[in-house]
Amino acid sequence: MSDSATPFHSIDATTGATVGDPIAVHGLADVESACAAAEGAFDTYRATSREDRAAFLDRIGEEIIALGDVLIETAMRESGLPRARLEGERGRTVGQLKLFATVLRDGAYLDLRIDPALPDRQPLPRPDLRLRKVPVGPVAVFGASNFPLAFSTAGGDTASALAAGCPVVVKGHPAHPHTGALVAGAIARAVEASGLPAGVFGHLVGPGNDLGAALVRDPRIQAVGFTGSRGGGLALLNLAQAREVPIPVYAEMSSINPVVLLPHALAARGAALGTAFVGSLTMGAGQFCTNPGLLLAIEGEGLDAFVEAARTALTDAPAATMLTQGIHAAYSRGAEALAGHNAVETIARGKVGEGVAQGQANFFATTADAFLADAALGHEVFGASSLLVRCRDEVEVMAVLRAAEGQLTATLHMDEADMDFAAKLVPLLERKAGRILANGWPTGVEVAHAMVHGGPFPATSDGRTTSVGSMAIDRFVRPVSYQNLAPVLLPEDLRDGATGAPRLLDGQRA
Amino acid sequence: MSDSATPFHSIDATTGATVGDPIAVHGLADVESACAAAEGAFDTYRATSREDRAAFLDRIGEEIIALGDVLIETAMRESGLPRARLEGERGRTVGQLKLFATVLRDGAYLDLRIDPALPDRQPLPRPDLRLRKVPVGPVAVFGASNFPLAFSTAGGDTASALAAGCPVVVKGHPAHPHTGALVAGAIARAVEASGLPAGVFGHLVGPGNDLGAALVRDPRIQAVGFTGSRGGGLALLNLAQAREVPIPVYAEMSSINPVVLLPHALAARGAALGTAFVGSLTMGAGQFCTNPGLLLAIEGEGLDAFVEAARTALTDAPAATMLTQGIHAAYSRGAEALAGHNAVETIARGKVGEGVAQGQANFFATTADAFLADAALGHEVFGASSLLVRCRDEVEVMAVLRAAEGQLTATLHMDEADMDFAAKLVPLLERKAGRILANGWPTGVEVAHAMVHGGPFPATSDGRTTSVGSMAIDRFVRPVSYQNLAPVLLPEDLRDGATGAPRLLDGQRA
Repeated sequence: MSDSATPFHSIDATTGATVGDPIAVHGLADVESACAAAEGAFDTYRATSREDRAAFLDRIGEEIIALGDVLIETAMRESGLPRARLEGERGRTVGQLKLFATVLRDGAYLDLRIDPALPDRQPLPRPDLRLRKVPVGPVAVFGASNFPLAFSTAGGDTASALAAGCPVVVKGHPAHPHTGALVAGAIARAVEASGLPAGVFGHLVGPGNDLGAALVRDPRIQAVGFTGSRGGGLALLNLAQAREVPIPVYAEMSSINPVVLLPHALAARGAALGTAFVGSLTMGAGQFCTNPGLLLAIEGEGLDAFVEAARTALTDAPAATMLTQGIHAAYSRGAEALAGHNAVETIARGKVGEGVAQGQANFFATTADAFLADAALGHEVFGASSLLVRCRDEVEVMAVLRAAEGQLTATLHMDEADMDFAAKLVPLLERKAGRILANGWPTGVEVAHAMVHGGPFPATSDGRTTSVGSMAIDRFVRPVSYQNLAPVLLPEDLRDGATGAPRLLDGQRA
Repeated sequence: MSDSATPFHSIDATTGATVGDPIAVHGLADVESACAAAEGAFDTYRATSREDRAAFLDRIGEEIIALGDVLIETAMRESGLPRARLEGERGRTVGQLKLFATVLRDGAYLDLRIDPALPDRQPLPRPDLRLRKVPVGPVAVFGASNFPLAFSTAGGDTASALAAGCPVVVKGHPAHPHTGALVAGAIARAVEASGLPAGVFGHLVGPGNDLGAALVRDPRIQAVGFTGSRGGGLALLNLAQAREVPIPVYAEMSSINPVVLLPHALAARGAALGTAFVGSLTMGAGQFCTNPGLLLAIEGEGLDAFVEAARTALTDAPAATMLTQGIHAAYSRGAEALAGHNAVETIARGKVGEGVAQGQANFFATTADAFLADAALGHEVFGASSLLVRCRDEVEVMAVLRAAEGQLTATLHMDEADMDFAAKLVPLLERKAGRILANGWPTGVEVAHAMVHGGPFPATSDGRTTSVGSMAIDRFVRPVSYQNLAPVLLPEDLRDGATGAPRLLDGQRA
């Protein structure tokens, strides 16, 4: 089971107490055997039909539901997140699996193209050319601390990689080892019930970085999915690029999700926006990748009303249990650095908690000049902390946005009368973010076809893809062209007369 | 125009003589101004309609044709390639531009998706979500020595980046500066005639590496297209990854394009295959990325006949002018290393040439054991050199293929009776190559929808894309999702009732 590493424990996030027996740490020999099994299973797994893989994904969902309430209770204990949130997250996890089953049954992700032979073309004949996307090979997925179900063992990256036909080796997050083990067991039961090789899914757990590093270095791993810190993501990216054969890393790392409060919206409903903002900021102890960490607004009465309402709401906001003591410590350091920054004003701080790892909400403000002068003010503080940049005019708002790093989201709160300013902002935001939203809050990421949960560096390491929504399957495929191959050698989807998946036939959709 | 660098000359590839006046070398100030102009032009250019960009691409093609025979003569002189080849390459270049005009008029590359709002959904409403792909920003394109037209100034990367809506800054290849200047002039005339900002296209030229390095480092550049050597591609990749904001590099670098001669095909027509092989090997002095540099076959009478016919054809093959004296020198070094390798047998060498840079064709053989023992035997020798790996059985053929690096192409010469063996090879080749072909030669890359000219590392630095064919536009776009945006703020293609580009509406193709 393990090499020499010291066992660790599941921790009750609320009390800080250890729970249950020590957990054996996987070692390098386990990485080796998981990767060997994944590689060994790949040819069998990718040869399955799309319908068989769809049924397998549906079965995983059923096995997760069949775990019953013990899954919710375990995740509550290990994450400190409330029941309703985790029940919703379980629904989201199962929903993602179902979505990718739909994607498989549809088949459009294969991007099938057929250019039939033109034997009489002058000066040279055209060969028969047929294209499809194929799975890249075994994929390493790193579980995230902040979504113990939807971005972890059976989360989005696992679902999209399995859908594509890639075996998956998960490095479970050590903040929720019992939750991860339950879900891994559910997947293993689905693998067996579906008659698939066991190597289709592997699960490794351990508290340090060595395990994940060994996984990314393993030559059999062909792509990496990660959601976590900027430092963690960049470390994996560097490892992947230093391999003899570099591989893609899809790391979602860092985003402060700018929210622009436009003048007419602020004038019309500054106070209501301020209250709603605190609701979004403090949800889930602020532990969302899309948490609104940066606000931009032009000075005026509307902004004053916003700030006043936010101050009131935030001052009353209870402290909330954070995922781990380590995350709480990092959050507190980040918030104190802002509180002590000589160009930063503290608007309000929430209630102080009494237990371990209780995160206190924070709302700060600064000027555009100060923000532009110190890049550190643009770095993520993971948790319920946000910084308002007070701007003199539209020009300053745009200068701050231009200086901001790549983001997962950018939000406009606007009224009809703000349209001209908004029209200037949208082209700028398209270059900065993967999702642009109006009159809402960035927390809450719909699992849909048209969702992009991605964005320019450092929001992610690869802004060409998304980690949420059906387009995520594009991460784990690459195109192959077949020229003049006998029909029996072609994949079924590319044979003449195959029905089902859409195809581009001689440039025409069919 | 230039910094302090020494001017260089256009060289007549056949005679080695300098032609015309010295060419002023662009310097760092020119990189700066070209990137500033590209960035300045981006917002205007990407806001053009798809039809306007299609017309612009068509116009570039017309301006290239309007250059007349001086373009062909200049390219002949600078590259040493024959007239028919360059006339064909001009047709291909114009054809690529037309293909991307078609891609723009179709609009499927935008991957439009609309998930309409579900205000009454329980427990939470669904917002209105709309997705399209947007251009990434200014793109740097490196011209290739071996295709002075189709992979250079107005080559595939330029065409697909301009189609996507990205301004392009070309680093012209110093082996054909006059050719590049003519084409750059044609593009500039098309830019002006189309009423576009001049910064949509920039062209830089110089003999060293500093210019290209500065271009890749420039923070305004958002992606890089490159076709050339492994060393050159890896250097650009490292520069791009070391940036404060890393960017994608699409480098096509190195491929030896394994050709498997299956037993029944060899028995039926070994001699004919041997003659045809030499035709493919020596075409264009072997200076194709898809040149058949590695043959695999099982020992037997069929292989003996193949080798004998190839020996005869190759011994008679005339030497051919290579693109540059540098390329010739590298080729000669590579061939001599093989000739002197103690596990390599020289089957035949072509005629020795008399002028400068005359490449002599080479055909070598080795055993599977020797190939597996020395990775250097699997490295590309750019030019008309190929290595036959004599195998004892199917198992050895598969072992050699498994050990081979990533490739642009893999070829099977096979008969009906070879089908069982071929069926074992195809899944293996899908993991190794971007294109699998039967009973043809890998040279000759069709510009089509179903073409993949790409492949796993080190064939390219990013096997998820192609550099030839309509799918190449995917290199230069990324997805953006719009949530609850007012119609007037949405791109036209995403508004209700927009016609033209196909869209996925609530998961249904429309």
